[in-house]
Amino acid sequence: MAFQYLTNIPLEQAKKEYTDLLIKNGMREVSERISVQEACERTTARAVYAQICAPHYHASAMDGIAVRASFTFGAAETTPVTLAPEQYVVVDTGDPVPENCDAVIMIEDVVKEADGSVRLHDAAAPWQHIRQIGEDICAGEMILPAYTKVSPSAIGALLAGGVMEIDVIRKPVVGIIPTGDEIIPPTSDPAPGDIIEFNSSIFSAMLRQWGAVPVTFPIVPDRLDEIRSAVSAALAVCDIVLLNAGSSAGREDYSAQVIQELGGVLYHGIAMKPGKPAILGYQGPKAILGVPGYPVSGIIVIEQLLKPIIAYMNHQPARQEETVQAQLSRPVVSGLKYQEFVRVRMGYVDGRLIATPLNRGSGVVSSFMKADGILTIPQGLEGYEAGSEVTVRLLRPHEELKNTLVAIGSHDPLLDEVADLLHRKNTSYYMASAHTGSMGGILAVRRRETHVAGIHLLNEKDGTYNESFVRKYFPGGGVRLVECVGRTQGLMVAKGNPKGITGMESLTASKIRYVNRQKGSGTRILMDYLCAKHGLDSSSIYGYEREEFTHTSVAAQIASGSADAGMGISPAAKMYDLTFIPIGTEQYDLLIPDSAWDTPLVQEMLEILRGEEFARKLEMLGGYTLKNPGRVRCRF
Amino acid sequence: MAFQYLTNIPLEQAKKEYTDLLIKNGMREVSERISVQEACERTTARAVYAQICAPHYHASAMDGIAVRASFTFGAAETTPVTLAPEQYVVVDTGDPVPENCDAVIMIEDVVKEADGSVRLHDAAAPWQHIRQIGEDICAGEMILPAYTKVSPSAIGALLAGGVMEIDVIRKPVVGIIPTGDEIIPPTSDPAPGDIIEFNSSIFSAMLRQWGAVPVTFPIVPDRLDEIRSAVSAALAVCDIVLLNAGSSAGREDYSAQVIQELGGVLYHGIAMKPGKPAILGYQGPKAILGVPGYPVSGIIVIEQLLKPIIAYMNHQPARQEETVQAQLSRPVVSGLKYQEFVRVRMGYVDGRLIATPLNRGSGVVSSFMKADGILTIPQGLEGYEAGSEVTVRLLRPHEELKNTLVAIGSHDPLLDEVADLLHRKNTSYYMASAHTGSMGGILAVRRRETHVAGIHLLNEKDGTYNESFVRKYFPGGGVRLVECVGRTQGLMVAKGNPKGITGMESLTASKIRYVNRQKGSGTRILMDYLCAKHGLDSSSIYGYEREEFTHTSVAAQIASGSADAGMGISPAAKMYDLTFIPIGTEQYDLLIPDSAWDTPLVQEMLEILRGEEFARKLEMLGGYTLKNPGRVRCRF
Repeated sequence: MAFQYLTNIPLEQAKKEYTDLLIKNGMREVSERISVQEACERTTARAVYAQICAPHYHASAMDGIAVRASFTFGAAETTPVTLAPEQYVVVDTGDPVPENCDAVIMIEDVVKEADGSVRLHDAAAPWQHIRQIGEDICAGEMILPAYTKVSPSAIGALLAGGVMEIDVIRKPVVGIIPTGDEIIPPTSDPAPGDIIEFNSSIFSAMLRQWGAVPVTFPIVPDRLDEIRSAVSAALAVCDIVLLNAGSSAGREDYSAQVIQELGGVLYHGIAMKPGKPAILGYQGPKAILGVPGYPVSGIIVIEQLLKPIIAYMNHQPARQEETVQAQLSRPVVSGLKYQEFVRVRMGYVDGRLIATPLNRGSGVVSSFMKADGILTIPQGLEGYEAGSEVTVRLLRPHEELKNTLVAIGSHDPLLDEVADLLHRKNTSYYMASAHTGSMGGILAVRRRETHVAGIHLLNEKDGTYNESFVRKYFPGGGVRLVECVGRTQGLMVAKGNPKGITGMESLTASKIRYVNRQKGSGTRILMDYLCAKHGLDSSSIYGYEREEFTHTSVAAQIASGSADAGMGISPAAKMYDLTFIPIGTEQYDLLIPDSAWDTPLVQEMLEILRGEEFARKLEMLGGYTLKNPGRVRCRF
Repeated sequence: MAFQYLTNIPLEQAKKEYTDLLIKNGMREVSERISVQEACERTTARAVYAQICAPHYHASAMDGIAVRASFTFGAAETTPVTLAPEQYVVVDTGDPVPENCDAVIMIEDVVKEADGSVRLHDAAAPWQHIRQIGEDICAGEMILPAYTKVSPSAIGALLAGGVMEIDVIRKPVVGIIPTGDEIIPPTSDPAPGDIIEFNSSIFSAMLRQWGAVPVTFPIVPDRLDEIRSAVSAALAVCDIVLLNAGSSAGREDYSAQVIQELGGVLYHGIAMKPGKPAILGYQGPKAILGVPGYPVSGIIVIEQLLKPIIAYMNHQPARQEETVQAQLSRPVVSGLKYQEFVRVRMGYVDGRLIATPLNRGSGVVSSFMKADGILTIPQGLEGYEAGSEVTVRLLRPHEELKNTLVAIGSHDPLLDEVADLLHRKNTSYYMASAHTGSMGGILAVRRRETHVAGIHLLNEKDGTYNESFVRKYFPGGGVRLVECVGRTQGLMVAKGNPKGITGMESLTASKIRYVNRQKGSGTRILMDYLCAKHGLDSSSIYGYEREEFTHTSVAAQIASGSADAGMGISPAAKMYDLTFIPIGTEQYDLLIPDSAWDTPLVQEMLEILRGEEFARKLEMLGGYTLKNPGRVRCRF
């Protein structure tokens, strides 16, 4: 084949060559005529001129009488002028001024006589209180230049100028073809192996935001001929075609072949991550983009490679993207061979904007939903160290970041409920939480990267929770420990406990598959402690190295049957309808640095912890004990 | 009646009391259930939780084989492990991992034997290359909190989490009722006295931008019973009703009465300009707003009084409006008794952002279209002096202002064509022109308020144009005079010259009504000169004091029959199909300060003047002579 298979072209080069090629092939904007009323936010395709004047007649600007000004000349307080009934006409605001009149006198300045004549104590200036023809718009005048976005008031000016229809740029039509044997339409009850096709819904929403019209075609199975005819059919009615999935070099990949047959492939393989397997194809002036199947890859590919093409076809000026300077909370390692796009969460802590990289798995669509910005690591750079000042492209208004409560530390579903209550109480407040475990939370507070950290750390010596750790890690003080909730930790096992697990001692049995939490989490520390206490060798527990990051994901593994037991809190077991073997209660507290204490965000959160609605929510979740949530336990 | 008729309540007080009253009456957001695919940019009405895990099964993350990791333990380069065909399963990316397997080995690390068994030279770690259940989203997890705007990636996360429909806030439905006997639907051929009803089109577009659903009802004549039943009918199906026009205290004003009968009127008359006659009415929790008929008043009233209500019903956080500091080019006088909203044009000249007030007539909708920002003059302030630093609320992106070429000076329709060509050549460039006449242009250059000024000023002594004026007003130099076009000035008269006007000498005849240009304009200066030359006493010319600001508006007056003659350029006469009596040719040049000369905007404009498309455009307009447009005539 003629095309370069799995090349590694630098992104900027690929973008430029691709757009240039399509333009050379004749890609350009197309116009359509629509009614002015429908034209808001559309872009004019050519200059629009007024057809009539506005006003289109001499209109009275007041309620009063229309007169010939010269008849009133000389009128004054002592020398009033009287006009006979045939010398004036009563007019209301908006009424046409009769042809022989050239002034309007306000009704309050007119003295009516019994015989129908009027007395005036002041002369009228010619054309006073008259909205003259063309005062607003003159016929023939240009109302809007070409390539101008139509505003609501422009709609008014166009209609006032007698323009009923205008030529605007037609929005490019983008066909989306999902492919794959295993792909099914969205459902809440998929069978194992079914892959829910949601990419086309994401892409459609993005395309609409960019000013294109998405058309999603039915899912096409992995067969060369079917894909070929689907793309052909789409090209007949669309300006651009996206062929989704099937663009890696796997055994079922027909995308590149089809695109090559129907037109051409400029590049297959771009030096970007995620998104490397993208295919830049075309048929004449029409782009055919092979988009990788993983959602995050797909989002990045269409944003980088398709958005500029749509902007070109819509004749939109290239907008400078809003960026901010932020400080990285963790190192980010990247490859030298590609440009990488890393999703980050951000928040203002202690006056600095902190950026924390999110899960980089390209299948993790929730990471994009949670992202506040995109950090670009250029090709040729190995990444950034923790603490680096980096430039981040914003995905959310900057204003929102300033009102975001940052929570880094141990995971508990109650944090999501706090986030919900916080945003409900004050719609301009947001909360962003990251699950790094209790120790991660303590370190985040030390590094001034979070407003609050959830912690539950057992002191093995005396059985107390949290305080001794805070004392150890904050010898200089500057933090407060706030009571949150008591939780019951225990072993989660499949419903009905089919493997007959009785407690810690059951876990070393060869038939038992355990699923653990990550190192540094309070639950893992508890588990390590319990093993030692029961004299268990953790290497004899199958799956001890299998780590999950949240209580719910441990519960999900057990519910799916891929593990038999895992340590976690009872609300997680309840959520997945698992049997729960209690082991003990623990104290889950919140650590808050003094520097954040007096902020409205933290104070609002404390209010919520003390409130009734929080208590009600936790009762619904179940498995929590509340004494005095929001109370300061100790100040260090 | 019980309500306060034509009160003068401070705007902020009225806003607060109005919203408070509606909330007290039960105004609140309403939710509706819609499909997730339709939910982009909608706001969640409550928190949304995942129904299923994503992935919902253990999925292979690679093309390869699925195995039980423990079978591979011990495998190394020198001690390979062989798996029998029944000990592994071939899997592709996305395939489910069979229940007894817990690792995937990449196909490139597998050596296939002839008997169907595979040889491995490396041990597999448990759960390697497997996307575990819930890696992205865990069932039961909160995907979105309440009152959150749904993003494209959130749509993906929701569908991945098995959520097919969500509760979002229903957009408030706003009924718009245009009233008035003289009001007609938009047309390009209205009869005198007909008022084209375009307010509902402006309001609808604004409402859509604010997240409401506008419903425009048919025009209702000025009859109490008809207005009452129209408002009743609208209230039955809408959350909010706008009653447009009929809200001043004129003889046909039934709005306040109807609103009072159907519910109540909080205030009639707000201390704001424009917009004073607004009526703040209600029926229970439903706002009924009486909106003044003039478009600019209406726009300001619904922006100030309705937008916050819609934001409340949509549960949108109050966004800080973007403002800039700018320097006023002219004084603005305002009344002490009201808060005034002044539309301004803005542009960066010589590093300073200059704001120039636009026509303040509330009937002039084009002034809103042209406005770059709104200057608010607080109640109790008499206005601002020229040169004041003022805060202006932006109506256009700040970025655009930086790329706007400012032209202040003499009017010529060619400037609109230059604006069109400039924006077409470079979509991020804009041009804003203000018509202040030639002398206004010279002063604007002197005050460093414009990049370019169109001038055509006759030196009466030697018959030359422009140079002597520039020399006089810029004794220290610092400007360049650029050749633009030659134009023919003359008397415009009605088609066929029914009044038999032969030249200047005809203008003093008693039957002739003249229409003049404003003082300081080049055409006025020419006219004054011609009168003196012909020995005419300008006070003997009827209408000499009647001033218009552009050639086209003079032509429009003559075309309408309200004047018989006016001085102007031949393109304006041609535009209105008038008979033109040539008097002489003049030179229309562009004055450009050195400080603006090297800017990309000015250089781009000069390119355009020298180009073929400009020449073609002017040929179409007719009446211009071009020699070397864009050439520097003199540098001072």
